[in-house]
Amino acid sequence: MAWLGQPVLIEELLFNTEHGIVDQSLHARMGAEPTNGDGFGLGWYGSGSGPAVYRSVAPAWADANLRELAAHIESPLFLAHIRAAIGSPVQQTNCHPFRHGRWLFVHNGFIADLHLLRRELMLAVDPALFAAVEGSTDTEVVFHLALTLGLEDDPVDALEKTVGLIEAAADRRGIAGAVQATFGVSDGTSLWAVRYATEGRARSLFASAEVESVRRLHPDNPRFQRLGADDRLIVSEPFSDLPGVWREIPESSAVTVRTGGVLEERPFRPRIPSTPADRPELAPAT
Amino acid sequence: MAWLGQPVLIEELLFNTEHGIVDQSLHARMGAEPTNGDGFGLGWYGSGSGPAVYRSVAPAWADANLRELAAHIESPLFLAHIRAAIGSPVQQTNCHPFRHGRWLFVHNGFIADLHLLRRELMLAVDPALFAAVEGSTDTEVVFHLALTLGLEDDPVDALEKTVGLIEAAADRRGIAGAVQATFGVSDGTSLWAVRYATEGRARSLFASAEVESVRRLHPDNPRFQRLGADDRLIVSEPFSDLPGVWREIPESSAVTVRTGGVLEERPFRPRIPSTPADRPELAPAT
Amino acid sequence: MAWLGQPVLIEELLFNTEHGIVDQSLHARMGAEPTNGDGFGLGWYGSGSGPAVYRSVAPAWADANLRELAAHIESPLFLAHIRAAIGSPVQQTNCHPFRHGRWLFVHNGFIADLHLLRRELMLAVDPALFAAVEGSTDTEVVFHLALTLGLEDDPVDALEKTVGLIEAAADRRGIAGAVQATFGVSDGTSLWAVRYATEGRARSLFASAEVESVRRLHPDNPRFQRLGADDRLIVSEPFSDLPGVWREIPESSAVTVRTGGVLEERPFRPRIPSTPADRPELAPAT
Amino acid sequence: MAWLGQPVLIEELLFNTEHGIVDQSLHARMGAEPTNGDGFGLGWYGSGSGPAVYRSVAPAWADANLRELAAHIESPLFLAHIRAAIGSPVQQTNCHPFRHGRWLFVHNGFIADLHLLRRELMLAVDPALFAAVEGSTDTEVVFHLALTLGLEDDPVDALEKTVGLIEAAADRRGIAGAVQATFGVSDGTSLWAVRYATEGRARSLFASAEVESVRRLHPDNPRFQRLGADDRLIVSEPFSDLPGVWREIPESSAVTVRTGGVLEERPFRPRIPSTPADRPELAPAT
Repeated sequence: MAWLGQPVLIEELLFNTEHGIVDQSLHARMGAEPTNGDGFGLGWYGSGSGPAVYRSVAPAWADANLRELAAHIESPLFLAHIRAAIGSPVQQTNCHPFRHGRWLFVHNGFIADLHLLRRELMLAVDPALFAAVEGSTDTEVVFHLALTLGLEDDPVDALEKTVGLIEAAADRRGIAGAVQATFGVSDGTSLWAVRYATEGRARSLFASAEVESVRRLHPDNPRFQRLGADDRLIVSEPFSDLPGVWREIPESSAVTVRTGGVLEERPFRPRIPSTPADRPELAPAT
Repeated sequence: MAWLGQPVLIEELLFNTEHGIVDQSLHARMGAEPTNGDGFGLGWYGSGSGPAVYRSVAPAWADANLRELAAHIESPLFLAHIRAAIGSPVQQTNCHPFRHGRWLFVHNGFIADLHLLRRELMLAVDPALFAAVEGSTDTEVVFHLALTLGLEDDPVDALEKTVGLIEAAADRRGIAGAVQATFGVSDGTSLWAVRYATEGRARSLFASAEVESVRRLHPDNPRFQRLGADDRLIVSEPFSDLPGVWREIPESSAVTVRTGGVLEERPFRPRIPSTPADRPELAPAT
Repeated sequence: MAWLGQPVLIEELLFNTEHGIVDQSLHARMGAEPTNGDGFGLGWYGSGSGPAVYRSVAPAWADANLRELAAHIESPLFLAHIRAAIGSPVQQTNCHPFRHGRWLFVHNGFIADLHLLRRELMLAVDPALFAAVEGSTDTEVVFHLALTLGLEDDPVDALEKTVGLIEAAADRRGIAGAVQATFGVSDGTSLWAVRYATEGRARSLFASAEVESVRRLHPDNPRFQRLGADDRLIVSEPFSDLPGVWREIPESSAVTVRTGGVLEERPFRPRIPSTPADRPELAPAT
Repeated sequence: MAWLGQPVLIEELLFNTEHGIVDQSLHARMGAEPTNGDGFGLGWYGSGSGPAVYRSVAPAWADANLRELAAHIESPLFLAHIRAAIGSPVQQTNCHPFRHGRWLFVHNGFIADLHLLRRELMLAVDPALFAAVEGSTDTEVVFHLALTLGLEDDPVDALEKTVGLIEAAADRRGIAGAVQATFGVSDGTSLWAVRYATEGRARSLFASAEVESVRRLHPDNPRFQRLGADDRLIVSEPFSDLPGVWREIPESSAVTVRTGGVLEERPFRPRIPSTPADRPELAPAT
């Protein structure tokens, strides 16, 4: 889940909401996995330089420190992620969000048969970034590919190229359904979210509706009345079943949330990046 | 779960069975909690002096070391426990089994409103054992009460007195449903299991049936054919749905498993222990 | 160590100083133990309600999250503690600071032969606080005794009574050198520090000198020029060897740091508290 | 440290010896780092299939489970390692020993400027092994290079090629002092140890002397009288200062310990491996 808006105590959204993300760590209703107990992470923008990242291998529901931090840190922009490990070890360096400079990155989903693709994908990572990959998740590889392909200039474009590159590599090996993903990205000012699957249905993704209409629909809800015009939430799973509060982000699309509560939507179309002139070794074998 | 029989690699029962206890840590079917991810423990008898105890705060399904140990340690008698914390912190000293000398103790269930009873119960613990309570669970208090009341001489009798003492203390404070429990105890030779609840249904408890009849009912199951006449399993939840393999232990009863596969059953009847002459401060206020 | 003054990024004092506390975790120069790698804790006042506490069983020098928090949390008042366990388990509930309401408490030192005294001391704790003791350290017992004896009204007075009560209990059992301590206490507004040992030299304790004189002595040090008139540090071990920057707090004395940089010093004189009329069981056996 | 000989309870060597390896984790006398508190690992051969590995991020001196395992597991051949992290994260996947099939591998020392070399070295790893590298240490890369270069056929020869390859890669980048190492390797039957540094003195390494002479020199030491003719220890730092018990392994040499207590010594001479015909991309740029 991700928040962009007025500064709030993080616990407001992590703990003090029905079906919040910490609840979901124990009892997800829509996720592929009902239990997401293999660590979690929280990245936020606020005091100090660049984003902070707190990552833990404890289940989110059981981490005393997470409660403390959430209850005592205010932030206008943060991302939280709960993990259900699919094969890779439960360790802090495998917990999201991943960070590069002022950028944060989270991912729900997977790269199919990563062990068959890992070497080729790591070769496509900018050599200067190669040693920055500290863990063993698919997500960290995806993030460093996207950084290689221009994430800092245009996040959605870079992710389209990244997914295209992965799908091409998977195709060459006969791996089906290469990418299943919702991605979340931020630079501390804006927030980008992508929903996409190579095959079949992509994991769920929702954005909170315009504050004005949420307030009008639920005039008696004090929490909603406190929301400002600039506040937006992006979540994998709605916190509540209240009508009109959430809008589903369509499959194969990307949204950008900008300061001021602006929400822009566009299609997400993976494509194979052109091989850079100085790295011919990356050209797909013909 | 507890095993008494021929020496086996622990993984045979922890990992290599359908609906084994590690599966149950993620997806229990009969337990009060579907997820038991707040640490676990394994106690076994084998090499070295007395029982060994391995305890971890990681969920059992995610602990790489547990897989290693289970795959490389053989034991004729071991207990495994998965924890769903009810209020007390997730820390190794709160993980079962608890140990005293050659004795091991596990507990599924709870003492109601322990925070109201904790001081009185700790006062009833033998002063020489007071400082041996390292964690903050109800179970560790129960174990040290039972040690105080003669567990090493007669485990079932001591647990009847312990439960009686707790129920009396709860009664005095108007606390209903004081004890909900299945207990497991071993001294390295025998195994005792108790199923009891002050009110309502007690948590489930099963013993494996006589090996001879299990084999006869399922002549084609190679695992069952390997079972020896001396092998017995006690579990909270049956590993399989095969008929004739498990017998439910009735409520308010205790079973003793002795070497040779002998299974004895008796009623479990809590009663208030008499106040020892040298500790009049323990007499209930009248 | 403790800071009271202008809001600073916590890393300024934890990481960005020579011989800071994280350095000391690996290479203490004056402490009783050169390595303090058995966990640590950080308590701070800032956003949200009451103090926040972050505790970890990892050595301070190796905890990636501590670096993150220190680099992104600003606070006008915080306490940090590194632990060298003396017997009790390495677990979060044994890490300082301990908290009660808006109060934080840290302790360097020990209660001699705690296992012999633990029961008697726990009996002297206010029964309403008994179940709030979650860990197994001497410090948590000391804190709850001090709360019982009025810490929230007069911290130094309550600690004098607490130490007196412990020394009396130790005397009755022939335990010598009962208390070795530097204590740190805060309510979010002021800071109290005590240096005391029943026998022999107490552990070291220092306060930063008046800012004006520090600045005058070291006019070329940019860090010191940034200090405000209200800033005070209390540390177990000076960060630097610069003359005039630190003043040693004498043995058997207590200091109070108030907003505005005021530092008051007074003797610390343990005494046996009078037995409350409603708890005659606490009167020492005669 | 490594043991090959009669089956012993692991604690005999880990805990019950003066200056044993757990002592060294807190107070090493000869190592490059006095504190080795960034995790540890224990690999042993015994019950079950292949070696077992227990790895923990806790300091060895503080890990309750390590004490339990050491006190209850017997093994005729085991390796223990304590870690002082140099840059890479403290996580289980960075703890030694590393394992491949029945092989175990430990390393004291480092590859200089690994972040500059990591990509090139990983490219030289057999592509089939690329995804098996789970952590971020230099040691795991070294091990997988050695596996690529024939460790399973001839461990010392493969390590000579591995070090040669690393030194050549470092040379091309102007990195001095590329390798500083003592290596330990086992297949469950024999034990190999290497002592080598590209420049300057290599880290210390010792083998226990022939049992017969140890016994004769110290006829009153009951521990030594229990040693069998087949028992050999390899350690980074001698456990005791007793004369005649330890012989230093010379720099740039390798020893092989075989069942029966046989100790063979040979020079260790790194050399650049020939490029395999099917992987011309590995030929050094000219």
